[in-house]
Amino acid sequence: MTDVATMLNAYPGKLPWIDENVLIVCIQRSLNSAQVCTACADSCIADPSAAHLGRCVGAALNCGDHAMTTMRVLSRPTAYDAALTRATLQAFVEASRVCYDECRKHALEHEHCRVCADVCRDAGQDCRHLLTLIA
Amino acid sequence: MTDVATMLNAYPGKLPWIDENVLIVCIQRSLNSAQVCTACADSCIADPSAAHLGRCVGAALNCGDHAMTTMRVLSRPTAYDAALTRATLQAFVEASRVCYDECRKHALEHEHCRVCADVCRDAGQDCRHLLTLIA
Amino acid sequence: MTDVATMLNAYPGKLPWIDENVLIVCIQRSLNSAQVCTACADSCIADPSAAHLGRCVGAALNCGDHAMTTMRVLSRPTAYDAALTRATLQAFVEASRVCYDECRKHALEHEHCRVCADVCRDAGQDCRHLLTLIA
Amino acid sequence: MTDVATMLNAYPGKLPWIDENVLIVCIQRSLNSAQVCTACADSCIADPSAAHLGRCVGAALNCGDHAMTTMRVLSRPTAYDAALTRATLQAFVEASRVCYDECRKHALEHEHCRVCADVCRDAGQDCRHLLTLIA
Repeated sequence: MTDVATMLNAYPGKLPWIDENVLIVCIQRSLNSAQVCTACADSCIADPSAAHLGRCVGAALNCGDHAMTTMRVLSRPTAYDAALTRATLQAFVEASRVCYDECRKHALEHEHCRVCADVCRDAGQDCRHLLTLIA
Repeated sequence: MTDVATMLNAYPGKLPWIDENVLIVCIQRSLNSAQVCTACADSCIADPSAAHLGRCVGAALNCGDHAMTTMRVLSRPTAYDAALTRATLQAFVEASRVCYDECRKHALEHEHCRVCADVCRDAGQDCRHLLTLIA
Repeated sequence: MTDVATMLNAYPGKLPWIDENVLIVCIQRSLNSAQVCTACADSCIADPSAAHLGRCVGAALNCGDHAMTTMRVLSRPTAYDAALTRATLQAFVEASRVCYDECRKHALEHEHCRVCADVCRDAGQDCRHLLTLIA
Repeated sequence: MTDVATMLNAYPGKLPWIDENVLIVCIQRSLNSAQVCTACADSCIADPSAAHLGRCVGAALNCGDHAMTTMRVLSRPTAYDAALTRATLQAFVEASRVCYDECRKHALEHEHCRVCADVCRDAGQDCRHLLTLIA
């Protein structure tokens, strides 16, 4: 459903990465996270018990913004900088951790929080993996 | 690879839409377009002949930003407003048209422009379809 | 506090606009709106009575995203397209209208909604003005 | 021209920050940087010598995205998390450093790069200051 791999293969310059498969997975994870976190925040505010979900909404919005920025930085090999890529991934990993911690508290009552927690956990894991591959 | 349908099904409120399948397709199209347009702009600036691709870069960046905003507005049923949804889709349709027109000029020499033109054409078609379904 | 005018003056190409002063004002309005809408949504979810502010949060988030995209499209003269600029402004005008309508309902109890309503009203007015100047 | 301070004063919850003045400055810096980096990238691609500005465009786009995400995370006290705030600021500091390094190379020939380099230097300095104040 996404063209991440096709676009990476069409890149006309030299790619700065050791492992393209991990890069592709992380771009797809961040893309999915950008949508799921947006939708989870919206589902939380639709809830009649929204008052106790405030931190969950904020955490999901922060994570959705970092997901988007991470997707974009990883999709731009031309200005590749190892330190910036690391800092970008670390910020997204932190945002995913905070969102995961909030969402899992409500995972039993709210299906959208359960899905969002899973998405944040997976994105965090794969981005930590990519972090280990950046010299 | 995306959880768009799962999150829509987990929405706790009342959905304002007639046809959820078209909505899901449009969210996925805009999500993919957000990534492909970002990557196409980056591939264009990596090209030694970047000087004649300036308008193509700008068109792709505009389209990538509208794709993201469209994905987010469509992922938020809680504050649904028919006029805003229409205007959002119309702006993304225009951005996809401009990006398609620029990218197809370079589609023969640049594989990334060929893919991006296809993605913009498909996103534009599906969003125009959704526009016809909004009362 | 912003360098919008300085950057517009430093643009090396030909500007497509009749009235640069109105353009500068609209970029500044959208920039301010991007921040104020983000902060208003966060203040709403911090409120113990957040449950009745759900639509207000969603409207502010939609407006903040459109504000950002509008700021970016208006800051990119290189790929200027009149139809896209019009559609971008129209979408932001709609988003500002919806956010204004929600925020003014709560303006008496919530200072952040009062400020956000004013910001949305001003941004909408100036963008409608710019719309009349685009041939 | 911005309402950052007004919105912070209208926040109904408890603010997690020691020094609100530094926070306000950092939100304004990131807001300005979001616009200036967008405009600098567009000015670079308008240039007939755009081919040698590819890395500068990419660096400015990355910095503009991080600026926006930083502005948003800093504007959301409700879900405040010290580690996420630190990682967000560190990523923006890195993005500002890379953009500054690219832009100052072209500062003598391109006024937009000179202004953008100054904006990135100032944003980086103030965000490093804020980083020292986060326990």
